[in-house]
Parts: sequence; structure tokens; C-alpha cells
Amino acid sequence: MEVPNLFARIEATVDQYCLAWSCEDHATREQLLLASMSPLARYCDPNTAADLSLTELQAHIAGVVARRPGARVVRTSRVDGHHNYGRFLWGVELPDGTMLPESIDFIEWDASGLLLRVTGFFGTLEPSPMS
Amino acid sequence: MEVPNLFARIEATVDQYCLAWSCEDHATREQLLLASMSPLARYCDPNTAADLSLTELQAHIAGVVARRPGARVVRTSRVDGHHNYGRFLWGVELPDGTMLPESIDFIEWDASGLLLRVTGFFGTLEPSPMS
Repeated sequence: MEVPNLFARIEATVDQYCLAWSCEDHATREQLLLASMSPLARYCDPNTAADLSLTELQAHIAGVVARRPGARVVRTSRVDGHHNYGRFLWGVELPDGTMLPESIDFIEWDASGLLLRVTGFFGTLEPSPMS
Repeated sequence: MEVPNLFARIEATVDQYCLAWSCEDHATREQLLLASMSPLARYCDPNTAADLSLTELQAHIAGVVARRPGARVVRTSRVDGHHNYGRFLWGVELPDGTMLPESIDFIEWDASGLLLRVTGFFGTLEPSPMS
């Protein structure tokens, strides 16, 4: 029997999670979030309060999705990781095909492979003036 | 009186931390680590065990520095962050000027601005085959 590759499984989980951010149907979106995130998950990005609970995140995503109908959140890189930590690039594709600036999520997952923490950062990093 | 900008302070702390990775003098390196990291800090990268304590990290850095004399760890981007989370790019500059592939650290800091967690990822992310 083939043992599923951990990172293939994490990538599939991340894709469910990204799909939740793209899904206007409330029930489907909730299913996607519950299938990809731990009930103990914490979420944070520059637009949220610190460390949202899963319930708070569900409400936050519902608001974001309602404000930009037809937009999709797309993973644009492989998930790279070690131990139970990972990172991946993503972008928001607007209904006219425009991509918003590429952003990055830093993630942690639990022993069952569900996302335990997601910390998002928007856009690319500015070069250091000192480098 | 000017209130110091939080991110300027975090950048200065990160630079002390990077300097510790570049410092062959044991006592100075320890001072830099104690000045930039919380005693409760946890560290992890692809080459370490999960979640090193500060003491374990000190030993790890001593080994890395001993194996590549003259190399410097240089921050190559601004520190971007929100709440108590941040990210920055860095690279290893070898004594002959060669730069190793640009890498990224995700960080958390405590209320006093000391690094509480550092999670490193090496190199740039591969594009997603699906994107």
C-alpha cells in the first residue's frame, strides 16, 4: 500500500482552504473550511484582528467573499515546508482575470494534517535599503 | 520625545539576530542572541530538529558558524509585519562574495520586541504546476 506523501496531502488541504476563500455558497465554504482546518485553528492577516478563532475566520471569509463576488484565491507556488511548518504563495484573481499582488501564507499543521495556524502577509517584500 | 517606530525597532532586533549568525566570537555572538531573542524563544529550520530552545539554538549557530568561517547572514529585505508577526528575506554571503539562495524567516515577537519564534525556509518557492 502506498503511503500518501505528506506534502501532497498538505497541498490538497491548502487547496481546499484556498477554495473556501473563493466560494460564495455558504454551506460549501463551511465544509471546505472544516475539512482543511483544525477546530483549534488561529488565523491572522494584516486586515484582521490578531489570532482569529475558526468561527471568527468563517465570519471574516464570508464578509470578504461577499465584498468581491467572482474573485478566486489561487495558490501560485508549491507548498514548501519542514516539520509541521510551511509556506506558499497565493494571489486573488478578479473576475476579469486581473491578479492582485502575489502574497504569502505561513502555515502550521497538526498531527492529522489540518491547518492549525495560518498567518498571511500581503504583497512582495521590499528590498532592504542596506543590502 | 519621538516614539520609536515598532518596525524600525524590530528591524534593528532582526539585524542583531542576523549578526549573531555571522559572528565567530563566542561571547559577542551570545550577547547578540540574548539581546535579540526571548529566553522562551523557539527556532526551527529545515536543518534543525523541531522547535529548538534558545540554548539549543545557541549551540546550533556555534556549529554553523564554525563550519563556514567568514560567511555573513545578511537581511536583504525590509521586515514586513502585522500584529506580532513578521517576515524578511536573508541570504548567506560567503567570504568570496558569493550569495547563497535568498531565503525567508517568519518571526514572532513578544511584548518587549524580542524574537519569540523564528521559522526559516531556504530558497525561493517553486511555481505551482497548477497555476
